[in-house]
Amino acid sequence: MNESRNAQVQSIFDKARFIHALGVKLTGIGDDWCETTLTVKEDQRQQHGFIHAGVIATLADHTAGGAARAVSGKQDVITVEFKINFLRPAVGKHLRCHAKVLRAGKSIIVAEAVVFATHEGEEKSIAKLTETLSVIS
Amino acid sequence: MNESRNAQVQSIFDKARFIHALGVKLTGIGDDWCETTLTVKEDQRQQHGFIHAGVIATLADHTAGGAARAVSGKQDVITVEFKINFLRPAVGKHLRCHAKVLRAGKSIIVAEAVVFATHEGEEKSIAKLTETLSVIS
Amino acid sequence: MNESRNAQVQSIFDKARFIHALGVKLTGIGDDWCETTLTVKEDQRQQHGFIHAGVIATLADHTAGGAARAVSGKQDVITVEFKINFLRPAVGKHLRCHAKVLRAGKSIIVAEAVVFATHEGEEKSIAKLTETLSVIS
Amino acid sequence: MNESRNAQVQSIFDKARFIHALGVKLTGIGDDWCETTLTVKEDQRQQHGFIHAGVIATLADHTAGGAARAVSGKQDVITVEFKINFLRPAVGKHLRCHAKVLRAGKSIIVAEAVVFATHEGEEKSIAKLTETLSVIS
Repeated sequence: MNESRNAQVQSIFDKARFIHALGVKLTGIGDDWCETTLTVKEDQRQQHGFIHAGVIATLADHTAGGAARAVSGKQDVITVEFKINFLRPAVGKHLRCHAKVLRAGKSIIVAEAVVFATHEGEEKSIAKLTETLSVIS
Repeated sequence: MNESRNAQVQSIFDKARFIHALGVKLTGIGDDWCETTLTVKEDQRQQHGFIHAGVIATLADHTAGGAARAVSGKQDVITVEFKINFLRPAVGKHLRCHAKVLRAGKSIIVAEAVVFATHEGEEKSIAKLTETLSVIS
Repeated sequence: MNESRNAQVQSIFDKARFIHALGVKLTGIGDDWCETTLTVKEDQRQQHGFIHAGVIATLADHTAGGAARAVSGKQDVITVEFKINFLRPAVGKHLRCHAKVLRAGKSIIVAEAVVFATHEGEEKSIAKLTETLSVIS
Repeated sequence: MNESRNAQVQSIFDKARFIHALGVKLTGIGDDWCETTLTVKEDQRQQHGFIHAGVIATLADHTAGGAARAVSGKQDVITVEFKINFLRPAVGKHLRCHAKVLRAGKSIIVAEAVVFATHEGEEKSIAKLTETLSVIS
């Protein structure tokens, strides 16, 4: 059970070239959750020196997809929409994202994700995402 | 007027390293709108070969930021939150994004953006974003 | 064609008791759009005397549902999620909402809606909604 | 401290006529949270007999506003935008909403809310909202 579940989640990280290119690591998988980390590169910042909203959104979206993939069995999932609130300026070099499934229906899965940044030794939440995914039949 | 407006918008593209790294080009600026394009690289795709949702979201977010920057005068803007709906599978190599301001308040600006993809000679909308930005005083 | 389409849209207004109770009127139907009005009652306001966000969201959600129902043929639709931005303080007594379909897929429809308020003879946009609906099979 | 905090939260329920008209009760207040209940009336349903999305959204929005008001001190708050995902068909007669603040900034507060419905003796989550509020100075 866990082996096939883990293989499902692993597969959407292995095959997603953009996720590799950013440097996202898959660090944990559970029955309805997924965790990732990202060591931020200098070219992932925006005009004020903060981590770009797009980097944070990509990390949160893909990790939410990982959580959804943990519950979707043989079927794959695709993002229908997401909403993300940025809670604090994204400083630091180390991001961690924890996503979990809120509701798994037959055709639609809803997941949420929190992104944390570590700065000066302290980890704080910097973004919260809610996402709808479609189960591909 | 237009010169300073254009310089404001240009600056948030020039200084955002992640936007450069992705290859986003600023192609148009108006009083309350902004337009960009992106020639998609192979490492910007996801596990099904489509353009990654994070690439599309980044393009839409930053272009919405450009539209907001066109109206915010001497003050800079930062993304508070955004929501994006993915309308079609993102195939093709050429993305275009058009963003416009829906409402410019003193402290909050609301903008929206549509992302289009060209595939087999036809351009179709693939995503719609709505975004709230904060005016930095 | 138009007759059955109009009957589909009409039905989701006729049978929705909360929409009647609020006083929402269905004023226009097209191939992929729907329009409604609401004369605001005093008990539909919030603590500052503005029209309550919930009234505006209900009007926008149901009108977006009407637009989706115009394109969904024999199948009914249900709201999966929506996001709404409030653009201006909602003053006045007369609301109008125009909703249109952004994308009609087999199982998912995306629609958007704008709510306008008339105050001192001038109509202004006060809210913008984007909504995902599921086609019920 | 708690007395003034409670009075702040209570005031946005006392003065909001739409909230009274719906029948929403304020049942709990904490340092950064707020809880409400609603006994659903027959005229608060939609075309399939479920509780209308607008009723659920109103309850979640106002309760999130209550949580924000618990942290905003002498200053009032107003909804900038919200997003709500509907997790299950809203059956039953008793709704409960728990909202908490995710981040309280000087000018912007982000809150989230979960709405639960009790049906056949079992309480289940039926909706999740994330909301941005502006602190009125």
